[in-house]
Amino acid sequence: MQAYLDNSATTPLCETAKQWMRRAVEQDWGNPSSLHEVGLNAETLLSDCRAALAKALRCKEKELLFTSGGTEANNLALFGAAYAQQKNGSRILVSAVEHPSVLKAAQQLAAEGFDVRVIPVDRFGVVSLKDVEALLDDKTILVSVMAVNNELGSIEPVEAIAALLKKKRSRALFHIDAVQAFGKLPLSPQKLGCDLLTVSAHKIHGPKGAGALWIKPGVTIRPRTFGGEQQNGLRPGTEPTVAIAGFAGAATKVAPEQHLARVTALRDGFVAALRKLPDVVVNSADDALPYIVNLALPHHPAEVVLNFLSDRGVCVSSGSACAKGHRSPVLTAAGLDPAIVSSSLRVSLSTETTEAELQACLDGIRAALDTIRRKG
Amino acid sequence: MQAYLDNSATTPLCETAKQWMRRAVEQDWGNPSSLHEVGLNAETLLSDCRAALAKALRCKEKELLFTSGGTEANNLALFGAAYAQQKNGSRILVSAVEHPSVLKAAQQLAAEGFDVRVIPVDRFGVVSLKDVEALLDDKTILVSVMAVNNELGSIEPVEAIAALLKKKRSRALFHIDAVQAFGKLPLSPQKLGCDLLTVSAHKIHGPKGAGALWIKPGVTIRPRTFGGEQQNGLRPGTEPTVAIAGFAGAATKVAPEQHLARVTALRDGFVAALRKLPDVVVNSADDALPYIVNLALPHHPAEVVLNFLSDRGVCVSSGSACAKGHRSPVLTAAGLDPAIVSSSLRVSLSTETTEAELQACLDGIRAALDTIRRKG
Repeated sequence: MQAYLDNSATTPLCETAKQWMRRAVEQDWGNPSSLHEVGLNAETLLSDCRAALAKALRCKEKELLFTSGGTEANNLALFGAAYAQQKNGSRILVSAVEHPSVLKAAQQLAAEGFDVRVIPVDRFGVVSLKDVEALLDDKTILVSVMAVNNELGSIEPVEAIAALLKKKRSRALFHIDAVQAFGKLPLSPQKLGCDLLTVSAHKIHGPKGAGALWIKPGVTIRPRTFGGEQQNGLRPGTEPTVAIAGFAGAATKVAPEQHLARVTALRDGFVAALRKLPDVVVNSADDALPYIVNLALPHHPAEVVLNFLSDRGVCVSSGSACAKGHRSPVLTAAGLDPAIVSSSLRVSLSTETTEAELQACLDGIRAALDTIRRKG
Repeated sequence: MQAYLDNSATTPLCETAKQWMRRAVEQDWGNPSSLHEVGLNAETLLSDCRAALAKALRCKEKELLFTSGGTEANNLALFGAAYAQQKNGSRILVSAVEHPSVLKAAQQLAAEGFDVRVIPVDRFGVVSLKDVEALLDDKTILVSVMAVNNELGSIEPVEAIAALLKKKRSRALFHIDAVQAFGKLPLSPQKLGCDLLTVSAHKIHGPKGAGALWIKPGVTIRPRTFGGEQQNGLRPGTEPTVAIAGFAGAATKVAPEQHLARVTALRDGFVAALRKLPDVVVNSADDALPYIVNLALPHHPAEVVLNFLSDRGVCVSSGSACAKGHRSPVLTAAGLDPAIVSSSLRVSLSTETTEAELQACLDGIRAALDTIRRKG
């Protein structure tokens, strides 16, 4: 492989994540709920993991709930908040470009009778405060807007939304899906002013199978899963210690400020080179998170280009991995032309991405433009 | 450590599980939903895992849904079946000794209006067919009975229950929580005659964080989590490939028939020695699964003995790990005297348990009886 540029789908595991996982596999493999020595060692591991993640998220350990990933954390946030707040009203606001684990959970809540309203987005998939304000009423119990969009990289005005909710003295809980932002932008849920915040391990060089929901002290949500007394019964089930350890190990390496300037420079060079190519359209905004560049090769179906690039050792994606190649609901919601939507690719960087990888991608795109027959 | 005898809480990882996990960590770390080479490698890993588990469970690959563990699989079975079947009625039968992830899910369904009935159990925690028959009506949509009880080791008459449902032409779906049975008893969901069956990785020397729900072909359940299109949308979220790989690796080593005679002989010797001790009561039935021996040292609080044994390097549990030392609902449902319940210990074996470990446990119990002051 020459260039792995699909880091928003998943990332390779970093050495520190592997080290922490080895501790969970070889040494502290017990059940953290067991009261004997083997169990206590696993409990110590778990509390070390919680401390590492709390440090990376600049929050307190007891505010973190471990889940099996971002999807479970988003589902727990939506259902848990909606059911806990239903005495206060039934309106729920979600942006049009949320991840399916938020959008489809909201659709299910709508089917159950909640008054779900979708906040429209602009050409770059960004919500406006005015639209949030227009939809917000005194029966609104939950607002869910992501920090960074997973396909376009657009940065949503989450801090301003939190301020708006405060100004309006809204009782609504505010949930932020920060899966694509964590590790890339400095993140402090307290400072953002939200009530619930989702993060995931496998986007920050940890393993798939671990996520977390940050819950503001004093905020109550209802459990979505029922069982044992782990995590105060709010998320029962034996903790996936290996995945959590990998998450924690990866979290110790999170240093968004350290990488942002370098990755921005890389991205700016890449976008400038893209713009020199005929027939390439850059869909992402210039002020988007520099880790995600969405582009289109109109007249060239995305899947064909993706396969062509993959054969050359360049891995990018069409839309999000979760959609398995289906037409992007994000780009459609942003109002992009269907011809653009069906020919769009996402190039996503990590803190480890090199200029050589982006050059390989550019060379591949150039070759694709020369080789693949135009459609229409 | 001299003796780890808490294998029903969790097991150390076997070498094969670790090997498969290394493949998922080092080599096939991609997102299985990604369409490029790195994704396809991960997809191949996932399909190898599915094949390995299907072989161990004697079922077809497409009948398996991976979950984050037994708790999620049990919750999905209960909510998924109840919601899918609610047009046919509202009665749900669960045994009194189910795992909390079944019992508390059933309680939640009762709070939502389902007619949940609890099947009583005998002195060993075993349900009788007569009681199932008495509670079964034509509005019954779901019956959930575990294959082996997690505290007493009692084997439930699940095959006979399946036959009864068939004889009565019941439309009820039959779910079996087989977490404690898998790998210890020969298991074929098709042969058992159930519709849904739960298994978990970390009880068979795989990692915590992976489980599976077997779903009979033609049986429809509703999803409990909403999001991407993974696993046909029935269980969305990026698959936890490291944990699933460990599950699959461990599953390749499952050979219940190979160990049953040896473990039964070990257990019989251990129980015979226990019965020679004054003041020791064996709670488990002689025909229980030989991997679990529940015993009581009346007048000696379980936690005190557990700590005493742990200090000597012998790890056993009081009740299940999920209950974190709270009074056992299983032993209480079985009608045991409170003095017995509060002084009960679970000694649980694995295929790797040795006679020396059981001897260390016996020596520890003897020392505890000599050393710890009797209460009452």
